[in-house]
Amino acid sequence: MKIEGKDYLSVWMEDGKVVMIDQRAIPHEFKLFDCEDYDATAWAIKDMVIRGAPAIGAAACYGMAQGALKDELKKAEAVLSKARPTAYDLFDAIKYFKANYSEGEDAKKIADDYADASAERCRKIGEVGDTLIEDGARILTHCNAGALACVDYGTALAPIRVAKKKGKNIFVWVDETRPRAQGARLTAWEMVQEGIGHALIADNAAGHYMQRGEVDLCIVGTDRVARNGDIANKIGTYEKAVVAKENDIPFYIAAPFSTIDFSCPTGMDIPIEERGEEEVTGMWGWDKDKLTCIQVAGKDVKARNPAFDVTPAKFITGIITEKGIFKPEEIASLADSD
Amino acid sequence: MKIEGKDYLSVWMEDGKVVMIDQRAIPHEFKLFDCEDYDATAWAIKDMVIRGAPAIGAAACYGMAQGALKDELKKAEAVLSKARPTAYDLFDAIKYFKANYSEGEDAKKIADDYADASAERCRKIGEVGDTLIEDGARILTHCNAGALACVDYGTALAPIRVAKKKGKNIFVWVDETRPRAQGARLTAWEMVQEGIGHALIADNAAGHYMQRGEVDLCIVGTDRVARNGDIANKIGTYEKAVVAKENDIPFYIAAPFSTIDFSCPTGMDIPIEERGEEEVTGMWGWDKDKLTCIQVAGKDVKARNPAFDVTPAKFITGIITEKGIFKPEEIASLADSD
Repeated sequence: MKIEGKDYLSVWMEDGKVVMIDQRAIPHEFKLFDCEDYDATAWAIKDMVIRGAPAIGAAACYGMAQGALKDELKKAEAVLSKARPTAYDLFDAIKYFKANYSEGEDAKKIADDYADASAERCRKIGEVGDTLIEDGARILTHCNAGALACVDYGTALAPIRVAKKKGKNIFVWVDETRPRAQGARLTAWEMVQEGIGHALIADNAAGHYMQRGEVDLCIVGTDRVARNGDIANKIGTYEKAVVAKENDIPFYIAAPFSTIDFSCPTGMDIPIEERGEEEVTGMWGWDKDKLTCIQVAGKDVKARNPAFDVTPAKFITGIITEKGIFKPEEIASLADSD
Repeated sequence: MKIEGKDYLSVWMEDGKVVMIDQRAIPHEFKLFDCEDYDATAWAIKDMVIRGAPAIGAAACYGMAQGALKDELKKAEAVLSKARPTAYDLFDAIKYFKANYSEGEDAKKIADDYADASAERCRKIGEVGDTLIEDGARILTHCNAGALACVDYGTALAPIRVAKKKGKNIFVWVDETRPRAQGARLTAWEMVQEGIGHALIADNAAGHYMQRGEVDLCIVGTDRVARNGDIANKIGTYEKAVVAKENDIPFYIAAPFSTIDFSCPTGMDIPIEERGEEEVTGMWGWDKDKLTCIQVAGKDVKARNPAFDVTPAKFITGIITEKGIFKPEEIASLADSD
């Protein structure tokens, strides 16, 4: 990804240190965070210096390489496993490192291979998805399925990056994505860095621009694709998909093929995480240079905060993966190709 | 309206002073603001101590009464007219006062009559709308069409207040309503004051609860009803209406009959105000006791900020007015009854 005109990955290894973009400071400030050893890498994952499942996976794999270099692989595994206990990619990465490393081998190279393969999947998603983007296209996206969350490219933002790189003139509508405002904080920042024309909008405004014919297609990420082609993604995705269909606007999901959970029959079988009320009654941002949480609602106000929602297959035009674009009704038939 | 257990109007006159709820401090603090003379009343309207078209109208009418009491009616009119130059209700109120007052008459009574009639229209909207609310109903509302914006009761919130007063067990889903968060700041506060069960939600979450069968009906306000039954209201109303229809949930508009603009053929003829980008890239709230604007998006991020959107008639179940509930397709035929 481009940042201040230079190419970056979200995480890499250099002189035995794991280096990562400090995502806690984005978009206010761009800075790198150095992890001298696997303890520091585990702490950085836990403290969300790095976030996004594929990015966490790569960081954990580099942490394992740090463990191997100190001949403390078991200790590294123990510490890293506890960093984000519900992150599937973290365990997948640790498993990958253990399966591929044996004493005396180049530990860094093994982690590089893992990270490269992760970035390559996103690059392919970008190439595949780019075929849907015409010159002049105005694309709406929700939340941040961007390069920061992956090793590079992103998922929903990968086709947008590729289209830009190919010289297409594109414009991106960026949903703010309350309550955590990942669109405002991260996606809009990525658009500025890549020099892509964009407009940040309140989530409420997406339908208005669809109605006025100013959105040509939607591309969003997903946390899980069910066997019947339903998907779960950040809260608000369902509303955007319904309004897109009402206005005959194609609605695409972009994700690595591994996001398809063939053991999950339908979207309604995906549990929806409910997060704290304080994310809805207040908001985080910067008051001059100070990260501040302001209170917006009054005291005694109750709030509900579902983090995800389910978009039924009937609202989805296609699912963009590194293996091609699939219609939601084709998903079940792909089970054997996994 | 109930506030801290006592009954209040948004504005009234007492010992020659115009007294109003200081809406700049809501929901952080409840306090009254005294205007000693019409200059102070005009300043309070201009500085948005009081906001909401019907409330501004009543305040201006009381300001005219202050002018009459000092025998400075012309001066009062000149000052008040400039307070909010685009507020239709303000001019309507001034016109009303001039038409009904002649020297030596009880100036306060004339303004009281104006304010009472305004409150009475809202009370009737409440009575009419209450017939749609069953015991146990879960109602979604967007923005703040509440008592603070009117003299009392509100428009969309009037049926909710009446239902509560009649002992119905109701629950209100309160959309935050970014970018200005009138739902979070005002509607949620009104619900707390009235002791009505509620949950503040991110605008993104409304569709999720509709999909899960947890919303029985929607009631919102409107800024203008077109002759064909389309309406304009706060940005996001269109999205909610589309998703409500998809889920077979009735979607009602509540407004005084005077909100119908028979000279406006369709919703697409209503101009949409675009406001400043800073409302989208940042947010206002309280950092402890200090009103603060935080920055959420990074620098160089572009934003768009349409304040309203248009909901076509086909998504509207009915329009609740003080004269009854009308289907959108009936609106044109009411032109002569105005």
